[in-house]
Amino acid sequence: MQLKPDCLVCLFNQAQRVTKVLECDETCAKDVLDTAALEIAKFDFTLTPPEAAAILYPKISKLLHKEDLYKEAKTESIQKAKKLLPFAKEQIRKSSDPLDAALRAAVVGNVIDFATQYGFDLEEEIKKIFHIPFAIDDKRAFSQRLCKASSLLVIGDNTAEHLFDKIMIEVFKEHCSHLDIYYFVRGKPIINDVTMDEALEAGLDKVCTVVDSGVDTPGFCLERASNEAKAIFDNVDLILSKGMGNFECLDGVKDPRLFFLFKIKCDVVAKRVGKQVGDLVCIQGDTI
Amino acid sequence: MQLKPDCLVCLFNQAQRVTKVLECDETCAKDVLDTAALEIAKFDFTLTPPEAAAILYPKISKLLHKEDLYKEAKTESIQKAKKLLPFAKEQIRKSSDPLDAALRAAVVGNVIDFATQYGFDLEEEIKKIFHIPFAIDDKRAFSQRLCKASSLLVIGDNTAEHLFDKIMIEVFKEHCSHLDIYYFVRGKPIINDVTMDEALEAGLDKVCTVVDSGVDTPGFCLERASNEAKAIFDNVDLILSKGMGNFECLDGVKDPRLFFLFKIKCDVVAKRVGKQVGDLVCIQGDTI
Repeated sequence: MQLKPDCLVCLFNQAQRVTKVLECDETCAKDVLDTAALEIAKFDFTLTPPEAAAILYPKISKLLHKEDLYKEAKTESIQKAKKLLPFAKEQIRKSSDPLDAALRAAVVGNVIDFATQYGFDLEEEIKKIFHIPFAIDDKRAFSQRLCKASSLLVIGDNTAEHLFDKIMIEVFKEHCSHLDIYYFVRGKPIINDVTMDEALEAGLDKVCTVVDSGVDTPGFCLERASNEAKAIFDNVDLILSKGMGNFECLDGVKDPRLFFLFKIKCDVVAKRVGKQVGDLVCIQGDTI
Repeated sequence: MQLKPDCLVCLFNQAQRVTKVLECDETCAKDVLDTAALEIAKFDFTLTPPEAAAILYPKISKLLHKEDLYKEAKTESIQKAKKLLPFAKEQIRKSSDPLDAALRAAVVGNVIDFATQYGFDLEEEIKKIFHIPFAIDDKRAFSQRLCKASSLLVIGDNTAEHLFDKIMIEVFKEHCSHLDIYYFVRGKPIINDVTMDEALEAGLDKVCTVVDSGVDTPGFCLERASNEAKAIFDNVDLILSKGMGNFECLDGVKDPRLFFLFKIKCDVVAKRVGKQVGDLVCIQGDTI
């Protein structure tokens, strides 16, 4: 998916968000925004939004002398997520369709950074997710393929979301015991995306093979992946791509092995998939 | 009031808004946003936000070969406002304190472009304004001065708002028949600010002396005013400054003749006056 004009404004707003999260003073905030503005003016429509972000964020990191801009924010979101895990597990346990419930738990993870704007309504929001219909719903097609698959690749997205992905993977393993599962993390810190550090800390390596994808964009850009990651991507029977960043990068890959699972968080993606901001979707890759 | 980092983001969002209002295609929208980004990176904190806007908008106008970017939008907002005028007049007629009600009617005007985000709730929103308390309320001090004044200057703000200003001025004239009233409009089209064209079309010249202030910023910047406008500003007994743009320009003028009347529409101004976004205020100039 290529960059749209609205993405430029979103990126500038993201730069502002960095200055808020890091509580920059006015001079520092202006430096960040000036740097962002000059970078944004250079972007063109050949880039995907995550590729543009991967140009912008390192410039901000350099300016602020802070490699992992969202380190503290990620730690905080992990703490918040941990409180919600028992609820998600309970929903899966009670469900008559555990694979469907597991995918919903993984969407709960994806909704977290979106839902923070709702503040204390987050729990209420998440309760709904185990019951509401998906705007595009290929979950059943995914589950059917999962039962026949020997290998699955899950492409991780945000930190905190990975804790819910772990729950999902545990359910998958319980129901499909011979399944080899791989989990891709980003090759370096970019925004609040999950990296090897957070994955290992959460013990994801105990339930699947965690792989450093080598990718430095906040979305799995296949061309930037390590040879190992590319080989896994090419050879697994099934791929579950989590979150909007990965969708923006892999949208062009028309592959029936590939399923996108995310909550729609912006107008540009909403328009692309023909649904609304806030909708949940599970989309098979060759149908979009 | 000097530019803050958040104003840079606001200005970029405003540039995006131009592309939406004018239904620019992607290439054109990108040109507008690139131009805006490059300009925004040049701004410094010596500017007021309206001065920065007065640099940005003409660049966009030139790029789009359209001097009055919001011409059609202004016409539309006038049509919407006209439907609300009878309600405002009725509220004043019923009020036991017509001067207070007239000032509230003028705030109704100021709330219009803000309230558009509420869509069909606009009428509901406006009904409230005749009853809710002001977060800072120097209306009584203004009215007391008005009764003793020989001359009043009203500094206009947005198009459509000027229709409500006209109602207010009619009430002022009814209660203070010997009052000379001047009404400042911008010297040229800038965003949706009221200019001589709209003022004359509304017949404001029938109820007061409409003056082209010569100012090209979306806020009355005294240094940019014509000699005639400066002389009026200096010599009148009382000044009513409408809207946030005028406040941003005149904030530094500590003058008891000056009253600011507006709805707070952004965090930067909210912080400056120590109140919340959405609050209504009437502030005497030497108290802020």
